Amino acid sequence: MASATFTGVIPPVMTPLHEDGSVDLNSLRRLVDHLIDGGVDGLFALGSSGETVFLTREQRKLALSTIIEHTAGRVPVTAGVIETTTARVLELVADALEVGAEGLVATAPFYTRTHDVEIEAHFRDIHAAAPELPLFAYNIPVSVHSNLNPAMLLRLAQDGILSGTKDSSGNDGAIRSLIEARDDAGLKDSFTILTGSETTVDFAYLAGADGVVPGLGNVNPAAYAALAALCKAGKWDEAAALQKQINHLFHIVFVGDSSRMSGSSAGLGGFKTALKHLNIIDSSLLAAPHQPLDDEEIARVNAIVDEFYYTA
Amino acid sequence: MASATFTGVIPPVMTPLHEDGSVDLNSLRRLVDHLIDGGVDGLFALGSSGETVFLTREQRKLALSTIIEHTAGRVPVTAGVIETTTARVLELVADALEVGAEGLVATAPFYTRTHDVEIEAHFRDIHAAAPELPLFAYNIPVSVHSNLNPAMLLRLAQDGILSGTKDSSGNDGAIRSLIEARDDAGLKDSFTILTGSETTVDFAYLAGADGVVPGLGNVNPAAYAALAALCKAGKWDEAAALQKQINHLFHIVFVGDSSRMSGSSAGLGGFKTALKHLNIIDSSLLAAPHQPLDDEEIARVNAIVDEFYYTA
Amino acid sequence: MASATFTGVIPPVMTPLHEDGSVDLNSLRRLVDHLIDGGVDGLFALGSSGETVFLTREQRKLALSTIIEHTAGRVPVTAGVIETTTARVLELVADALEVGAEGLVATAPFYTRTHDVEIEAHFRDIHAAAPELPLFAYNIPVSVHSNLNPAMLLRLAQDGILSGTKDSSGNDGAIRSLIEARDDAGLKDSFTILTGSETTVDFAYLAGADGVVPGLGNVNPAAYAALAALCKAGKWDEAAALQKQINHLFHIVFVGDSSRMSGSSAGLGGFKTALKHLNIIDSSLLAAPHQPLDDEEIARVNAIVDEFYYTA
Amino acid sequence: MASATFTGVIPPVMTPLHEDGSVDLNSLRRLVDHLIDGGVDGLFALGSSGETVFLTREQRKLALSTIIEHTAGRVPVTAGVIETTTARVLELVADALEVGAEGLVATAPFYTRTHDVEIEAHFRDIHAAAPELPLFAYNIPVSVHSNLNPAMLLRLAQDGILSGTKDSSGNDGAIRSLIEARDDAGLKDSFTILTGSETTVDFAYLAGADGVVPGLGNVNPAAYAALAALCKAGKWDEAAALQKQINHLFHIVFVGDSSRMSGSSAGLGGFKTALKHLNIIDSSLLAAPHQPLDDEEIARVNAIVDEFYYTA
Repeated sequence: MASATFTGVIPPVMTPLHEDGSVDLNSLRRLVDHLIDGGVDGLFALGSSGETVFLTREQRKLALSTIIEHTAGRVPVTAGVIETTTARVLELVADALEVGAEGLVATAPFYTRTHDVEIEAHFRDIHAAAPELPLFAYNIPVSVHSNLNPAMLLRLAQDGILSGTKDSSGNDGAIRSLIEARDDAGLKDSFTILTGSETTVDFAYLAGADGVVPGLGNVNPAAYAALAALCKAGKWDEAAALQKQINHLFHIVFVGDSSRMSGSSAGLGGFKTALKHLNIIDSSLLAAPHQPLDDEEIARVNAIVDEFYYTA
Repeated sequence: MASATFTGVIPPVMTPLHEDGSVDLNSLRRLVDHLIDGGVDGLFALGSSGETVFLTREQRKLALSTIIEHTAGRVPVTAGVIETTTARVLELVADALEVGAEGLVATAPFYTRTHDVEIEAHFRDIHAAAPELPLFAYNIPVSVHSNLNPAMLLRLAQDGILSGTKDSSGNDGAIRSLIEARDDAGLKDSFTILTGSETTVDFAYLAGADGVVPGLGNVNPAAYAALAALCKAGKWDEAAALQKQINHLFHIVFVGDSSRMSGSSAGLGGFKTALKHLNIIDSSLLAAPHQPLDDEEIARVNAIVDEFYYTA
Repeated sequence: MASATFTGVIPPVMTPLHEDGSVDLNSLRRLVDHLIDGGVDGLFALGSSGETVFLTREQRKLALSTIIEHTAGRVPVTAGVIETTTARVLELVADALEVGAEGLVATAPFYTRTHDVEIEAHFRDIHAAAPELPLFAYNIPVSVHSNLNPAMLLRLAQDGILSGTKDSSGNDGAIRSLIEARDDAGLKDSFTILTGSETTVDFAYLAGADGVVPGLGNVNPAAYAALAALCKAGKWDEAAALQKQINHLFHIVFVGDSSRMSGSSAGLGGFKTALKHLNIIDSSLLAAPHQPLDDEEIARVNAIVDEFYYTA
Repeated sequence: MASATFTGVIPPVMTPLHEDGSVDLNSLRRLVDHLIDGGVDGLFALGSSGETVFLTREQRKLALSTIIEHTAGRVPVTAGVIETTTARVLELVADALEVGAEGLVATAPFYTRTHDVEIEAHFRDIHAAAPELPLFAYNIPVSVHSNLNPAMLLRLAQDGILSGTKDSSGNDGAIRSLIEARDDAGLKDSFTILTGSETTVDFAYLAGADGVVPGLGNVNPAAYAALAALCKAGKWDEAAALQKQINHLFHIVFVGDSSRMSGSSAGLGGFKTALKHLNIIDSSLLAAPHQPLDDEEIARVNAIVDEFYYTA
């Protein structure tokens, strides 16, 4: 299996929940269909938007296997194996292998203070446990509080350890710099670079990125599929115009009152509220201790969706 | 069971490992004896120094049950239930209850962005799952990247949710401020404040703290027991002199080369190296992806131990 | 005078120094000609790249007056009035007015802890002292350690206090978000948004920005003039290709050894080394306590310039 | 002149202002008398509490000369020479020398990104400009956003460049560690270590510090003089009790509403409000863009002063 499979629009699949906190498999299946029907190129299960760090190991495995089974090969599915340190990640790798994931996505160690040497050893150990699966390094400093070193990434690419990276640093200049260094190193075809930023996909493509992992893509996958198509066709002005529409839709993540909830609650709550409004999932419940949007906020989210939702 | 049990010197018990990464139970039992013989007042299993975020759920449970069984009531044992979010913490609470832990220690949520409202809900849910066990809030911003709000802590104390806090912020002024606010609120007898700072125990006691959770206490428990005794006796000049000796011993955490390893590797590696030198544990191996001290560094750690180790 | 004057390529003019630390006026005049001949649209004197916080008040005034006199109206000149707090900024405003600056650029207060309410008062006081000059807010969190609030910027734009902003946050997504909010507020024609990021100018233009303030533009103004022209013409693929060449030239800022000097020394030292290599300025000396590049580093900078310098 | 002069209680003298923003010399003289009558050991003019970065160069010189003249040798006076970079600091050094300052206090460079090598060069250049005056390094990361390297400090002490440090990091453990390193290096008598933390003076003395630079000492100098005396006498329990009273008085810095003003406004506003309440200064006005306390807040500050003010 080649890592090249994971290019284009690869949304981080959300995890719908029942009111008792268990995974809502029917809603999850509808969401998978919504995404594939929207034209996405792959699915990233158990990412940050999937509330992976809010799920027990059993819940994660259940969500992942459900996504894989229901996708049934229509698009490739990669799995987040996001845990604090190596031994714990390896447990998740075993689960992912067991249920048939076609790729892995891992972060640097977190909670513990870490170091480039340790991060590199971490990725090498993960790859050794599943050498047949493309491994992506997930750069998400807002969560793990370290930044993946570009030189380390390219060294691991050269050594066949990493097949790509998903960069959620929000630093478009740094992503471009990584792309340029990758290309200069002759790794353009062997190391995939995906942006995690919903609002600057055109920037990333213009700089040479291979795709995007947009949380908002759960809500409006067709918008991102269309945006990626415009970018690949070099229709940059049209791409920027569509990106602008998408960015207005993105305002749903800012509706939740920051005096009452985290950015995670507001953001994922905005997404799930929109998905419920669109009749994709049954409940907008987030996992504890996330806090819910109130009725007025839900109404505002719905109004934004009604105004800015893209349909082909 | 009263939270008042957890005062005085309560070291965060390290987790010795075999060369294959499994928990070395015999070394762990010798470490428990070393600590109790050194005069500590309680044990904190599965804390940061115990490499808890490097252990699988099964390893955690095994280490905890071994500590509890081998302690056999000589001192109380409290258990870290350190996970990213609520549902995952509750799994650890169930494990802790099953093996007989006498207290719980939980952090704020991590990896996810969080909020005071969410942190408070998190602690309330944890307490509800084990209302009979004293629950301590663990303030460790270097790991979870948020700071526990003092007003929230005292509100949770007032409501009987929290029995105390372990503060590893390294901010002695903030700890004193919390102590003053606690005392002003009439919560002196119902909310225990422990410092996690090895090098300023005399400061904490002088300000009215109830004890210390010193990582270095694994190496030299008798030093901390003596220090606490001097503080409680109001022999502050002698306490400061002993603290100074301890602080020179603490230099073992700075020996590991920071160009090659994290502060976690250097710190915990220094502790385990010292414990091996003292013939308490068989191997100084740390869990992956921690990096090891080299021979020259080991020799320097041993020399520091030989010079500054306190014996009564 | 309309703020609309300050759009397009407006490099932050460097301040060449003699070996004794005094301002080298002849080199400065040659630099001004180099910039204007390169096709820039305006000049920003006394910005961060101009080492403004390394210059005494007298040196600043001398550099500014020299730039204005030598420019002689060929392009408009705006002046940084960068000081810790209001009264001190107002002294610089008086100097700028005296020597004929056509615009002002001010940051939030720094050194002191500050607050949105205070930052807003600060800008209002500055505008009141020179109501006839367009005032730009300079967002540079790496230096002042606060971020300018977008809602505040637009409120000040609405009130006629601010004519624009230069954003050196390095956050292209945030700049785009500000542009979108500006346009939604109907302020597109009255509030100018310039990026300070050398390596993502195409991104900024694609999102609707009005121009760029590139430090690297001192070295290669023609490259930025050509880049801006391509962007304005909607030739995005060509723009991205030229941006890529420019970004390779930008590597001159990373040559200085970070074990021996700050990023400021490496960056500004790279620029001045290149300018000396191009025979624009006589000395690459930076103001104290900046540290110099060594001979090997100078050779590497020169080689990068030789390889990637753009000529029309 | 020996740096040993600057030990004990050395408050950072506030700068009273007239309603038009000019320095109120009569109030300043009364403040100087209040401090000396309160038993302080020296005065630190033009520090952060003196709003030095809010004053023009002329205002600074006027305030400094007034303090020196009015002190008339009763206690030694040291002067802050706080500016972004070297050339600008040297201007202030010249001013300080001209009006007879007996010591200098300088920070690391700020606004610019800096580096240990540059900070060290900076202090060496400052000392070279006034080799006869003891030079203190002022560690204030909240303002300059870098931390002074302890090894560098001791190297500069060894070389006779630095006579001491004022540490306002708020990190009591780090101050103790510096004290221990100083003593181990045999520099106890040649390098003075002062804490800038108002609420942990007993901690600092217990660890071996030489004194304190307390902003709150402007309000209640006698409290700090008494506290220092208790510490020097080894009466630690009494010291801690007085420190506790002082810490309740310190609550005046938290009265100003953080939704309306910075911590600087709240803190310095609390101090000036108290000084006006005590009839030491005529106006509590702070320099722009500081925001004022409102009437209700003023009343609360006054009530705290009435309850917790220490008199011998």
